[in-house]
Amino acid sequence: MSFSEGSLKQMVTRVAINGFGTIGKRVADAVDAQDDMEIVGVTKTRPSFGCELAVRKGYPLFCTFDGEEKIAAFSDAGYDCKGGLSDLLAICDVIVDCSPGKVGSENLEKYRNAGVKSIFQGGEKHALTEKSYTSSANHSENWGVDCTRVVSCNTTGLSRTLVPIYDAVKETGKISVNSVMIRRAADPGDSSKGPINAIKPVLKVPSHHGPDLMTVKPEIDITSLAVAVPTTIMHLHAITLTLPSGHGLSTEKVLEIWGNTPRVIVMNGSKTRITSTAEVMELARDIGRKWGDLHEIFVWEDGVSLQEDTLYYFQAIHQESDVIPENVDAIRAMMQTEENWKASVEKTDKAISTYYGI
Amino acid sequence: MSFSEGSLKQMVTRVAINGFGTIGKRVADAVDAQDDMEIVGVTKTRPSFGCELAVRKGYPLFCTFDGEEKIAAFSDAGYDCKGGLSDLLAICDVIVDCSPGKVGSENLEKYRNAGVKSIFQGGEKHALTEKSYTSSANHSENWGVDCTRVVSCNTTGLSRTLVPIYDAVKETGKISVNSVMIRRAADPGDSSKGPINAIKPVLKVPSHHGPDLMTVKPEIDITSLAVAVPTTIMHLHAITLTLPSGHGLSTEKVLEIWGNTPRVIVMNGSKTRITSTAEVMELARDIGRKWGDLHEIFVWEDGVSLQEDTLYYFQAIHQESDVIPENVDAIRAMMQTEENWKASVEKTDKAISTYYGI
Amino acid sequence: MSFSEGSLKQMVTRVAINGFGTIGKRVADAVDAQDDMEIVGVTKTRPSFGCELAVRKGYPLFCTFDGEEKIAAFSDAGYDCKGGLSDLLAICDVIVDCSPGKVGSENLEKYRNAGVKSIFQGGEKHALTEKSYTSSANHSENWGVDCTRVVSCNTTGLSRTLVPIYDAVKETGKISVNSVMIRRAADPGDSSKGPINAIKPVLKVPSHHGPDLMTVKPEIDITSLAVAVPTTIMHLHAITLTLPSGHGLSTEKVLEIWGNTPRVIVMNGSKTRITSTAEVMELARDIGRKWGDLHEIFVWEDGVSLQEDTLYYFQAIHQESDVIPENVDAIRAMMQTEENWKASVEKTDKAISTYYGI
Amino acid sequence: MSFSEGSLKQMVTRVAINGFGTIGKRVADAVDAQDDMEIVGVTKTRPSFGCELAVRKGYPLFCTFDGEEKIAAFSDAGYDCKGGLSDLLAICDVIVDCSPGKVGSENLEKYRNAGVKSIFQGGEKHALTEKSYTSSANHSENWGVDCTRVVSCNTTGLSRTLVPIYDAVKETGKISVNSVMIRRAADPGDSSKGPINAIKPVLKVPSHHGPDLMTVKPEIDITSLAVAVPTTIMHLHAITLTLPSGHGLSTEKVLEIWGNTPRVIVMNGSKTRITSTAEVMELARDIGRKWGDLHEIFVWEDGVSLQEDTLYYFQAIHQESDVIPENVDAIRAMMQTEENWKASVEKTDKAISTYYGI
Repeated sequence: MSFSEGSLKQMVTRVAINGFGTIGKRVADAVDAQDDMEIVGVTKTRPSFGCELAVRKGYPLFCTFDGEEKIAAFSDAGYDCKGGLSDLLAICDVIVDCSPGKVGSENLEKYRNAGVKSIFQGGEKHALTEKSYTSSANHSENWGVDCTRVVSCNTTGLSRTLVPIYDAVKETGKISVNSVMIRRAADPGDSSKGPINAIKPVLKVPSHHGPDLMTVKPEIDITSLAVAVPTTIMHLHAITLTLPSGHGLSTEKVLEIWGNTPRVIVMNGSKTRITSTAEVMELARDIGRKWGDLHEIFVWEDGVSLQEDTLYYFQAIHQESDVIPENVDAIRAMMQTEENWKASVEKTDKAISTYYGI
Repeated sequence: MSFSEGSLKQMVTRVAINGFGTIGKRVADAVDAQDDMEIVGVTKTRPSFGCELAVRKGYPLFCTFDGEEKIAAFSDAGYDCKGGLSDLLAICDVIVDCSPGKVGSENLEKYRNAGVKSIFQGGEKHALTEKSYTSSANHSENWGVDCTRVVSCNTTGLSRTLVPIYDAVKETGKISVNSVMIRRAADPGDSSKGPINAIKPVLKVPSHHGPDLMTVKPEIDITSLAVAVPTTIMHLHAITLTLPSGHGLSTEKVLEIWGNTPRVIVMNGSKTRITSTAEVMELARDIGRKWGDLHEIFVWEDGVSLQEDTLYYFQAIHQESDVIPENVDAIRAMMQTEENWKASVEKTDKAISTYYGI
Repeated sequence: MSFSEGSLKQMVTRVAINGFGTIGKRVADAVDAQDDMEIVGVTKTRPSFGCELAVRKGYPLFCTFDGEEKIAAFSDAGYDCKGGLSDLLAICDVIVDCSPGKVGSENLEKYRNAGVKSIFQGGEKHALTEKSYTSSANHSENWGVDCTRVVSCNTTGLSRTLVPIYDAVKETGKISVNSVMIRRAADPGDSSKGPINAIKPVLKVPSHHGPDLMTVKPEIDITSLAVAVPTTIMHLHAITLTLPSGHGLSTEKVLEIWGNTPRVIVMNGSKTRITSTAEVMELARDIGRKWGDLHEIFVWEDGVSLQEDTLYYFQAIHQESDVIPENVDAIRAMMQTEENWKASVEKTDKAISTYYGI
Repeated sequence: MSFSEGSLKQMVTRVAINGFGTIGKRVADAVDAQDDMEIVGVTKTRPSFGCELAVRKGYPLFCTFDGEEKIAAFSDAGYDCKGGLSDLLAICDVIVDCSPGKVGSENLEKYRNAGVKSIFQGGEKHALTEKSYTSSANHSENWGVDCTRVVSCNTTGLSRTLVPIYDAVKETGKISVNSVMIRRAADPGDSSKGPINAIKPVLKVPSHHGPDLMTVKPEIDITSLAVAVPTTIMHLHAITLTLPSGHGLSTEKVLEIWGNTPRVIVMNGSKTRITSTAEVMELARDIGRKWGDLHEIFVWEDGVSLQEDTLYYFQAIHQESDVIPENVDAIRAMMQTEENWKASVEKTDKAISTYYGI
């Protein structure tokens, strides 16, 4: 909701978005759909085509900077700019930093000085915030914190499916995970980046994804490699997992666990003819969320197989959107408005669900 | 609207969709959004994942065939099937044929026998219906007809920008058009078709697109060539047009004409950083229509140039959706519910517009 | 060599190629370049554009079948056909089966009845030949056998780099390998197969590659997953390997081992700006072998890292050609003309080396 | 040839290559294969992986600059550098400038001061050299000139097929050409450039290709548009041509003309299953030239159609290599060693032909 009234007012968290781009615009809409929070402003660095969207959606527009000249540039271009970042910080409880990165530490200081809680995205390092977040891994550990970081799309994806497996066998022993991230090389709206016809390995090994998962779930032993491939639509993870002996699971049991896990979709590739990320994204378009987003991690049922202690599976990650609902939940953890992570997830997701029922 | 009541009833056209696929599902939603028509049923050939969408949207589900066994298969799979094609034909005024093609003539006979008006898509030949349609070219010529064909996405795109130019100069003389269609080789949800790394010429020359435009606007002299390229998201047309001498137009005048033409978007590529079809489709996702569709033809302002009698321009076509609103208008022409094509276009578009204002 | 004379005659193995396609034409050229073997004929199923190449290269042309009509079709098309498969079998010592697959068992019977030794390719299953081959894994085990199978391009690639690591630590214990094959979805000359913009997991898990490696080196414990991606030029393997504790290796030592391994190229990606399979293939074009082939497995030096007991590395596989020299070596094993695998490899490679020195 | 002796010496043109990259390395090999010219040196800006190739091929290596430090850097890296650009200019008759562009005018002055003839590539503008070249269009006009420019790959392609048509009808009247260049967006060895999934129009209209053709054949009236598409392997031209009335040609006659035109290959796409640029490049790999190059322009026979005065056709251009033999011919024109362009073409091509006969 954008506007709130009366007695409800006190309970509504006032949220600002610093950087109204690919992630920022999506977080804004997801927050706007909740009844316990509202968007009090979004920022752009300068008047640009992207301001149009903020205006049309009815979000108050601010300048990323405080300089008078920079603020004035907006009105010159015909946009009603409500002020600079300081003005925005003065009216919000929490700010979601969706700036393009590398300015994290500078921003954090501004937020702290203004006494505003802040959420960073996975482009920033754990060292900046010293706290990281995914809904299922460590909601309670983020209870009331002033600053956290929603991990990257890939790490969020790993957390979604690995945490429940970890939880199911943790009494028996540790799980040991081997993962390869096959990454889309550019986002759909980016026409400059390649490759057009090549596979590009990320030569720094292991890739950061495995260690990054351990910032939210240190108990999971995981290693990872990554490659970039010429597609724009999804990342895909190829995962091989060793369970502790005596784990007591079966392929069916694993599918059941994920079937009961929020924000995980399990579907049979051959029955539904969903044979690749192309058909997964087409399903997402049918579901009908804005931008054709898929917040859920997609697991191919017929690619899941537990053979003795080894669990194999593939999952697809919508890089532009799987972290969006996590940002909403993180706000509740920090603002201490919902202690139970599953309750927060349910509330978040219901507010953004479509006719499709999810 | 799906349900209508009372006195309104008489005025509401009852529309059926034969084939609830890529085009069918979109036409259904566009019709459903109008206040002068309603969806009375959509068909699927067999129980499949696609039925899910129809059910969730609340569209009555029918079987494409009349056989009892085929109909029963739906309930066996848990879907509430209302009957076969004959049952659907009994309760509709007009049927939009979105079947995958090659069954056109067989279907047309069924529709005629049932006394139901019908609209075919561009996959069928003009010879089948002997009448073709685009909103701007020949709405009035389709007034009250029993059967017509909404031309293909490419031909619709040509009609959108060429008809107003033709109209502007027709007193002076003819226009002569040279067009090359650079076609996306597969739709986004199709992972089987290639090429991955090649350009494929359509060796039948001229391609069917030029002659096809003449089925709706015979006065335009046009030739066309086509190639397929490894992208999934849009067709692009490279057009060179010779105007009659003494045409009185200028680049600015041409831009003004298109600025006033419905379902044409003119934007400056360098100012908006929309340099390719990738950014055009990203704009469409921001606009917020279902499936991220773009009903409008996109013209790059800075690619338009009139030099003496030669007009150059590029336009991008969203192959999955530009024909959708034309189907709605075609229903009004056939059902004689709106005589003025511009009024119909305005009514259609307003009903499916988003917060973006278009 | 294609023609041999005099006393040399006895020592020259007469080789036939059944199926002169992607693999067949390459094996023919590699055999032709050796001084201890000669091509006595190649087959095509029917007169076609591909016959042109055989004729121009001077390889006697035969029909894959024995029917008179089928043989006659070649002369009708202007090609000098020397006879049917039986005629070819009558004049060769060994036949390399490069037929498109699924006809393996039928062919094997014909070869056996004719008393001709045979080599199959990786498209056939191990069960057919009950013997599989890579030069470094099991040359001696194929000594004098009547029939073997050169494993697929991917399995050959795994064998090249894993066998020497296995050999280096086998006294200490077993190695355990986790591999993900990121496969090119279509060959460069194939414009029909997709996907254009998607990642496609191979849902049968584990993929056949791991088990397949064990047909030539059962001592290596390996599991594998596979995905197809929209590129035409190379497969890429992302490998994580657990060494036995006390292995005594280091990153440098591993690099040294591969530096001494035939048909493995180790290069530094950042120093040479070879950041993806695109630049690897460009290197291959510079090397100057026919078709721009790269028989060697390419390992990125700066992607190799041994951390405690875990070895990470990436390797690229030229799917069209890495098995070619293995076929030549396999002939020597079967014909008992060279017992030492390294000597055979050296002889094979020297005969097909270019000005580039490899 | 690299080395020449005795009385032949006087007749051999001493050729230098400034910039041993994509084009430079190919021109070097083509020159080296001729018996009336020799490579006296090639330059690199600094010691790099590319020097390796020059060394292995036996081409004397020079530094692009004259500074002692820059020259010394080569020996430090283990390469035998023969000196700077001045040293190279002192020993050559003609220098082929294959530098990456934007340094043309600076270079030209150096060449002039050294009294060395020079050839630039299509990346430079006609204004620099005031003379441009293709073998078939204006060999004689380049007779004895001190400086010329071999036009770009696309313009060379247009010249190859349009000049003979122009010649065939020039007595009757002018031809008027409409061309669209569908360009590969990046070369095969380039993994950084996109787009991955988009079509990108070149918004400057008309594109430079049409006007550029008129620098070698001003009599041809031509306009052009260009788009970039996500492929690496070839450009494709879609051409519509208006012949003067009374032209006397037919589709068959046009095919016959091109059949007799050097460096044009006409093949039937459906008979040979060459349906796209992928199969064309595969044919080139079979032909067996270095790098899998195709110097010829490929025309699809079944895409050629003359309907009244309108000629339609598609042609594919190997962007990396079609200009290579033109550089050799241009040397002969400038050095006045072969007056007849067809004789030069025949001599050039014979020297670089393969077992394939072309």
